[in-house]
Amino acid sequence: MIFLDNASTTRVCQDALEAMKEVCSDLYYNPSALYGEALKVKNLVESARRDIAAMLGADENEIYFTSCATESNNWAFDKGIKNKKGNIVVSSAEHASGYECAVAQKSKGIDVRFVKLNSDGTLNEEDLLSKVDENTCFASIIHCSNETGAVNDIARLSRKIKEINSKTIVHSDGVQAFCKISTKVKELGVDMYSLSAHKVGGLKGSGLLYIKKGLFLAPLISGGGQERGGRSGTENVPGIVSFAAAAKYFVAHYDIQKIKQMRELIISELAPLGAIVNGPSDAHSILSLSILGIKAEILQHMLSDKGILIGLGSACSSKARSNRVLTAIGRSAKEIDGSIRISFGLDNDLEQIKHAASIIKNDIITLRGNIR
Amino acid sequence: MIFLDNASTTRVCQDALEAMKEVCSDLYYNPSALYGEALKVKNLVESARRDIAAMLGADENEIYFTSCATESNNWAFDKGIKNKKGNIVVSSAEHASGYECAVAQKSKGIDVRFVKLNSDGTLNEEDLLSKVDENTCFASIIHCSNETGAVNDIARLSRKIKEINSKTIVHSDGVQAFCKISTKVKELGVDMYSLSAHKVGGLKGSGLLYIKKGLFLAPLISGGGQERGGRSGTENVPGIVSFAAAAKYFVAHYDIQKIKQMRELIISELAPLGAIVNGPSDAHSILSLSILGIKAEILQHMLSDKGILIGLGSACSSKARSNRVLTAIGRSAKEIDGSIRISFGLDNDLEQIKHAASIIKNDIITLRGNIR
Repeated sequence: MIFLDNASTTRVCQDALEAMKEVCSDLYYNPSALYGEALKVKNLVESARRDIAAMLGADENEIYFTSCATESNNWAFDKGIKNKKGNIVVSSAEHASGYECAVAQKSKGIDVRFVKLNSDGTLNEEDLLSKVDENTCFASIIHCSNETGAVNDIARLSRKIKEINSKTIVHSDGVQAFCKISTKVKELGVDMYSLSAHKVGGLKGSGLLYIKKGLFLAPLISGGGQERGGRSGTENVPGIVSFAAAAKYFVAHYDIQKIKQMRELIISELAPLGAIVNGPSDAHSILSLSILGIKAEILQHMLSDKGILIGLGSACSSKARSNRVLTAIGRSAKEIDGSIRISFGLDNDLEQIKHAASIIKNDIITLRGNIR
Repeated sequence: MIFLDNASTTRVCQDALEAMKEVCSDLYYNPSALYGEALKVKNLVESARRDIAAMLGADENEIYFTSCATESNNWAFDKGIKNKKGNIVVSSAEHASGYECAVAQKSKGIDVRFVKLNSDGTLNEEDLLSKVDENTCFASIIHCSNETGAVNDIARLSRKIKEINSKTIVHSDGVQAFCKISTKVKELGVDMYSLSAHKVGGLKGSGLLYIKKGLFLAPLISGGGQERGGRSGTENVPGIVSFAAAAKYFVAHYDIQKIKQMRELIISELAPLGAIVNGPSDAHSILSLSILGIKAEILQHMLSDKGILIGLGSACSSKARSNRVLTAIGRSAKEIDGSIRISFGLDNDLEQIKHAASIIKNDIITLRGNIR
């Protein structure tokens, strides 16, 4: 199996499985209980929190574990918009979980301003700055697009936003950026930052929200007061320890040059067939391509039969074959029909990719032949 | 180690670990992706859904997986109260996650009516029915108390509520009841029912909300539209498959007679010391005791050093040594100071309990000696 849909989820790494094993067997206790064995579990959770905080350049008290980045995004939007009479500014490239939150806020009567994208998938800075004003209470800009791999310069954009309105709370969805590019939150200048475990080799069902010290966010989920009152519910210990272990492993093994070589290899093989890259040339782990004259689902299916697994854009939107983000960068319906997403992970290597690229190429030729 | 805090969390059972193994290794794919391998993952999720639905006597389309029962309770309260001008009726014995939601609704101006408890921890039916009226839009009654083990006759209470107001949406928190007593939702007559995986041997970080067909509940967490639009976020596949496997194992191995014997054994050993049972005589897996003249934390600590792990009431409230539920059944501050919670699970047996009971007894005597 050659797995090229790592942006959707990636293999649980051995270190994560090991970390999890202990808290599913000997140390299965509830970390909120007060006997010694439970305190050991609590310590594992806090150690994971410190590890991830260090990777983000954050304080451990700024990390709130959640059940997934979708929850983190919902929490940020639902409780981070404090002035219901203010406006909010949102990138058109947000992941479905951010986008749907923005739509929900709009339906509640909030003035939601969607910011245009450049043709390479990055956020249009001019449009952004024209939409931020003295009433902007919240802004959300995805760090690395899950559709195109386009990376936004969050440090610059958040600084520019705050130059216009220093009170604007800036949130970023860092799911596809974490462990791949620098995500030091103080340098990014964000107030909130959402992450997910299963994109870096941790378990599904685990995520976090970084909340800058001093910013109070009412809980989305309340009850027993876990996560310092920020997120109730028994801590997902296996998820949390796997998250930290996986992130450390990922960072140590992610070779951006190798990833870029794999990306280039696919592009060089498919460009002669007229494949258009959706995204900037300096993207790395995500490669979105539009290939005219084919139906992407059929290509995906043919490749799947040969053991090559590719995506059709985010799994969260793959059922509906419209694509909001590709539309926003100017792709036509036909280009979207023929759009595939190839995303690389730690398990991929150049040999594999050479093999996959030649099969993808042949299948495209076959498909076009069938259409004619 | 003799673990007697199973109501807080219980050991992950072997079947759950086995079920999880596959979806963490070969089948780690995102169930929303469309290639064949991902469909296999989707099928595992749907099979788990059917298994649990069958155990609840529900339709599989009535089951929505969540990250925990706390999330389920938050969802039920936050989106189940549709008429903001109506009143809601809530048991005083709700778990912290239900109780805090009720308090939050009250702070939003909703007329929240807390229903008294009987001295044995069950809900006071007379008080309940006096508080339900034509404007009651929502009622929440915990099925089995996590503090006292008291079981409410949900079938009878929901029928009585609906006789007064057929439009009242009835929710119940079934966390401590599931797999231990009948939780057939149609017989209970509830519209919503919350469950958690880790109380029956599944992984932490997984729960569900049963929502009766025909009742529309807006999502608490939106985005990619997973769980038929009800709960977005990549499905927690390891959590979900472990939940179903654990529940099946639990039901097959839970021996209520054996549990009652263990309970009686502890009571008979400690009653001569003046221990008062907080809860009804027919409770089983949870035993709350008030022992005057000791500090429960110190007893817990002494026992922990000897490898016997007991609770101090719900872990969710164990940090604050007040106890809302014990107060509601009439316990004094001193009785609450000396209250412990012993809860049984599949791993316990009579030999273990005999041994534990005699140590607990000796430690109580030692503690009282030290106090005098």
